[in-house]
Amino acid sequence: MPAKVEDGEQRGWIVPIGGAENKDDNPRILKRFVELCGANDADIVVIPTASRLEDTADRYEEIFSELGAARVATLDFDTRRDASETNRLERLREASGIFFTGGNQLRIATTIGGTPIAGLVRKCNARGVPVGGTSAGASILSDHMIVNGHEGGSPTAGGVQLAPGLGLTNRFVIDQHFRQRDRLGRLLAALAYNPFSVGIGLDEDTAAFIGPDNTLEVEGSGAVTVVDASNLQFSSMARVGENDPVCMLGLKVHILTAGATFDLESRRASAGSLAESKDNH
Amino acid sequence: MPAKVEDGEQRGWIVPIGGAENKDDNPRILKRFVELCGANDADIVVIPTASRLEDTADRYEEIFSELGAARVATLDFDTRRDASETNRLERLREASGIFFTGGNQLRIATTIGGTPIAGLVRKCNARGVPVGGTSAGASILSDHMIVNGHEGGSPTAGGVQLAPGLGLTNRFVIDQHFRQRDRLGRLLAALAYNPFSVGIGLDEDTAAFIGPDNTLEVEGSGAVTVVDASNLQFSSMARVGENDPVCMLGLKVHILTAGATFDLESRRASAGSLAESKDNH
Repeated sequence: MPAKVEDGEQRGWIVPIGGAENKDDNPRILKRFVELCGANDADIVVIPTASRLEDTADRYEEIFSELGAARVATLDFDTRRDASETNRLERLREASGIFFTGGNQLRIATTIGGTPIAGLVRKCNARGVPVGGTSAGASILSDHMIVNGHEGGSPTAGGVQLAPGLGLTNRFVIDQHFRQRDRLGRLLAALAYNPFSVGIGLDEDTAAFIGPDNTLEVEGSGAVTVVDASNLQFSSMARVGENDPVCMLGLKVHILTAGATFDLESRRASAGSLAESKDNH
Repeated sequence: MPAKVEDGEQRGWIVPIGGAENKDDNPRILKRFVELCGANDADIVVIPTASRLEDTADRYEEIFSELGAARVATLDFDTRRDASETNRLERLREASGIFFTGGNQLRIATTIGGTPIAGLVRKCNARGVPVGGTSAGASILSDHMIVNGHEGGSPTAGGVQLAPGLGLTNRFVIDQHFRQRDRLGRLLAALAYNPFSVGIGLDEDTAAFIGPDNTLEVEGSGAVTVVDASNLQFSSMARVGENDPVCMLGLKVHILTAGATFDLESRRASAGSLAESKDNH
């Protein structure tokens, strides 16, 4: 559950990225993230706990510094005890931005879930600190998280496994590497269980920048597939057996590219700056 | 996510029951539920959507009336459109208690999830209305809900399937028919993903009465198994393959019988009225 936003404060941005974001010639996603964290005053904490690769954190430290952040530090957690250690909690408290790398979302959930660090990430976000993540680091941000599933375009019963994430928001369920790994079916299956939420499928090198007002704006070279199940007429998920196809009636789908927006409260999509640029020609 | 409790108001009781509760010679669980709903002034709405049996709702209407409720009505939902119909919303708004019958929790989630009825159940609970449920009706109450899994005492990877529930609370994950269907393993597997939550395993004819202060008290003839994973040292869920056993270190477990309590905030168990009665002998 998201931490309470105190009167007079605003929740920080939430920035899930679909993985494989450009870090070289056009790092526009990471650049915008650094700007949200305070640009030249940014103090970013990188959490590489999802990854088993030694150099994951170094790569992000380097690029955030290149993009102008004043201070970048890595906080890694090998054990659950690490995630309640005072020094690391104090360091996290100073951050003006928090970033989760890719890897396996269950490494984050099993190591940090329910620890003081998890609570502090939610509290930081509630008092305005942007929290971003890529790939596994994107999935972990929401309350209901996809951890596994079948490839393919249509939903099957048992075709998705869900687990609790960090819970910065419960307004959406995220999937990443979306077009590249053919994940529409598993995102739909997640919504077929309980259609209360919005599904967000993020292509690689594509991010959803979700503001304090719960409006999402797309940045990057791919698309964000938004599946709105709020007016679903019917889901057969309660009646079908393992591996059977699932019937879902009345889904609304938007494919957003850079500049387009989706309001998670009113559930309205808009062409955003795409429409504006058309007026100029 | 639970609805906001307004200043000066208290959240209503949440009453999950493990299924097969006594309805004949000693209906102590249902009796206590009726008392919480206002005893002779109680106005209880029964929601039998989980069940496919024709007479499920009739049986509860009958017993709640026998136990003294002033008014009992059944609200069933065959379709998602039913769950936004004005008359039913108005009727639910009048209730002083809401009760979900057993059946299949996915019938509730797929039919009601994300509809105005689901939001209204949360709002009623936030302004003080008790919400109870038995079996599937117990599972649906929390945010993260077990919908399927393997039998057995120890957790395996892939041994539990989770889906979003109605979300009256995110403080615990419920399992029911607990001893009778040998479900400890799947409850542990649910916690192994992300140990932020408390696991509550409800035997048949046994209920957890969870007050506005988040203290749980047991009623009924069986036990409530409380699994507190907050101090978990380690979970191997991120590293193991499907069907492999999962390693979990540092679980705290309490077996509570009628009268014993567990505080979901401090995570402290107490013998409650059991200890008091000992003093009398």
